[in-house]
Amino acid sequence: MGSEGSKPVRIGLLGRGTVGAAFARLLEERAEAVAAATGRRAEIAGVLTRGEGSFEQILADSDLVVELMGGTDPAREHVLAALRAGKPVVTANKQLLAQHGDELFAAARAAGVQLRFEAAVAGVIPIVRAIQESFGVTEISKVFGIVNGTTNFILTEMAASGAGYDEVLAQAQKLGYAEADPSDDVSGADAAAKMAILARLAFHTPVTLAEVPFEGIEAIQPDDLAYAKELGLSLKLLGVAERRDGGVSVRVFPCFLYRGHPLAPIEGPFNAVMVEAPAITEVTMSGPGAGGLQTASAVLGDVVSILAGEAPVHETRSELPMVADVTSSFYLHLEVADRPGVLAQVATVLGDHEVSVKSVVQRGAGEDARLVMVIHECLESRFAAAIEGLGELDELRAPPRSIRVIEEQFQ
Amino acid sequence: MGSEGSKPVRIGLLGRGTVGAAFARLLEERAEAVAAATGRRAEIAGVLTRGEGSFEQILADSDLVVELMGGTDPAREHVLAALRAGKPVVTANKQLLAQHGDELFAAARAAGVQLRFEAAVAGVIPIVRAIQESFGVTEISKVFGIVNGTTNFILTEMAASGAGYDEVLAQAQKLGYAEADPSDDVSGADAAAKMAILARLAFHTPVTLAEVPFEGIEAIQPDDLAYAKELGLSLKLLGVAERRDGGVSVRVFPCFLYRGHPLAPIEGPFNAVMVEAPAITEVTMSGPGAGGLQTASAVLGDVVSILAGEAPVHETRSELPMVADVTSSFYLHLEVADRPGVLAQVATVLGDHEVSVKSVVQRGAGEDARLVMVIHECLESRFAAAIEGLGELDELRAPPRSIRVIEEQFQ
Repeated sequence: MGSEGSKPVRIGLLGRGTVGAAFARLLEERAEAVAAATGRRAEIAGVLTRGEGSFEQILADSDLVVELMGGTDPAREHVLAALRAGKPVVTANKQLLAQHGDELFAAARAAGVQLRFEAAVAGVIPIVRAIQESFGVTEISKVFGIVNGTTNFILTEMAASGAGYDEVLAQAQKLGYAEADPSDDVSGADAAAKMAILARLAFHTPVTLAEVPFEGIEAIQPDDLAYAKELGLSLKLLGVAERRDGGVSVRVFPCFLYRGHPLAPIEGPFNAVMVEAPAITEVTMSGPGAGGLQTASAVLGDVVSILAGEAPVHETRSELPMVADVTSSFYLHLEVADRPGVLAQVATVLGDHEVSVKSVVQRGAGEDARLVMVIHECLESRFAAAIEGLGELDELRAPPRSIRVIEEQFQ
Repeated sequence: MGSEGSKPVRIGLLGRGTVGAAFARLLEERAEAVAAATGRRAEIAGVLTRGEGSFEQILADSDLVVELMGGTDPAREHVLAALRAGKPVVTANKQLLAQHGDELFAAARAAGVQLRFEAAVAGVIPIVRAIQESFGVTEISKVFGIVNGTTNFILTEMAASGAGYDEVLAQAQKLGYAEADPSDDVSGADAAAKMAILARLAFHTPVTLAEVPFEGIEAIQPDDLAYAKELGLSLKLLGVAERRDGGVSVRVFPCFLYRGHPLAPIEGPFNAVMVEAPAITEVTMSGPGAGGLQTASAVLGDVVSILAGEAPVHETRSELPMVADVTSSFYLHLEVADRPGVLAQVATVLGDHEVSVKSVVQRGAGEDARLVMVIHECLESRFAAAIEGLGELDELRAPPRSIRVIEEQFQ
């Protein structure tokens, strides 16, 4: 796409389910940012749904097609028609790429247009871009990870609660982490499609879904997880694509990991992918694997890359003020005289500065007495004033020591 | 850069230190892959070192300049001259970008050429590309992480060994994780330069090194780490760039994290960066933060992106065979009859198939007796045959259950 100045880019949107609707909203919300990044405004030219719209008309009206219908039929015909008409395509359709990748990529090359699909694998994690662009000429030896959020949620819950597979699946369905018919996820088929796509990109060799053996998590027993915990292991549904014996091996299977493995702490509906190569050692990327807004965000990233053509040279768009005084939580270490009333004096100084204590531990005695505290989030200037106040107490045997604490608890 | 067919791209290389030499080697090693990905061969046109080479001559002979000299003088003049001559530039120079970003980006825009710098922040982790391209139109709220490997190595060792700062620093220097003069790293100045770059990209606002307050790790005491361990905290040197109160706050400081925080398990010389935004929730990327080959690999990724122009449409380059039988380690769960000799019988069957046991736990009694084992890595076909053999034993009360185990221990 050239830089045709002020003429808006017209986007043909195929599909208006959760992701399609989120994409249309996000495109409107981020219109200014899209224009700033690409030099062009973007707008929806038409939307094709099951009941409404003519594909031919939408194609004729569009500069670029976004396919979010899912399934392979009629998505395959529509994407092929768009590419053959010289229109770049962005899709989130993993089944389409895993089953018909050869045909689609060939059509894109023949037409000289881009086909982008970041959202098809691991949601908003930019793994497709990393493998295709950052590591595009790297001799990748292995790509593996957790590429299905539903199963990772179920395994996390089973391990945490000791409950059985059926019970946790029902809970996942209630929370929206599993579909009414979860078979594609729990059988490993969904992960297999994603691994076929990643293997193709990493090894530059054709890989289709039919060539990827997969096992699911339906047979996992709660006591497997209980024994594994004793052995220091945690269970994940892994997709693995690696060079082996002069060829490649691409598989999906449930697997135990030792603590300390970078994928072991990935819990709940999150995804994570590792890339290994001699020249990069290993890079791990993790984030939410699904969600309408997150997937739409990955689609928009692809759209912007197509519109921008060459990578944009950074340009600042605003002059935001630098904020000096922010809030933080703190660890506070005080060497104190071992006499009654010290804690009360310290607490009074802190209270005078509206600094509040979250937890406190008193240790040692005599010349080794200490108070170690965690302080609730407060303005740093206020904490600094409190520290200054504490410094004036005779009861302190050394200047106070403090270190910030991130209170946020994840997952 | 257009696709000028078979004419090789000439690269002017400024600097031949560890990274420069690694880049020249990597470019030669990956020549075929570069040609396949970009349609053009790439070769070194000339190398400028402190003692040898004429910058003017190298610039005249080059289509693209790679700056790996470090420092701001004469790197700044050279990069500006290259951009003004219409030559795209790739640099790994964080000081240059953090101190003179405005000037350099303006020169690149004025000349209409790319200035790329993935290697300047967090080594081979593709965080610059992710923020500029994948999340280029995303309303990023916060970018933060561990962007200095030297200090993370020191803090990890102090926490693990209980040793003091000076002792661990000396050890880091011996292992090559810290320089002879470590002040830029341990003071937080190096991390501040990287955070200035990331803040500029994330918030599209000018940020320079001089505006980023930083604290280092020199004052950390071993007993801070000991107390923190009791509180379930681990210490990291964090860089934080976030939107706050209508402006931005960019800072570097040592900070405790609770277990469960995605950055808490990042140990040793690794780096990790998190990006937060409403539309993406959070994405975490981790990997080696330094190393000559890793940094050179990031530089090469940028060079290839410039040569490729638009993102390449995926093309397979080979037809690798799919390998079916691979090796794995296994967890094996057997419900067994509670009588003498069962373990011997099981072990005999495994031994007959050359399957060897790493660890075994015997649990329960009577109708609840079980053997739970971890099996050393072996060909899956061999393990499957052993399982079949076990299935024939009268002593088993139920079919064997097995799950793969990743034996690899990281970091």
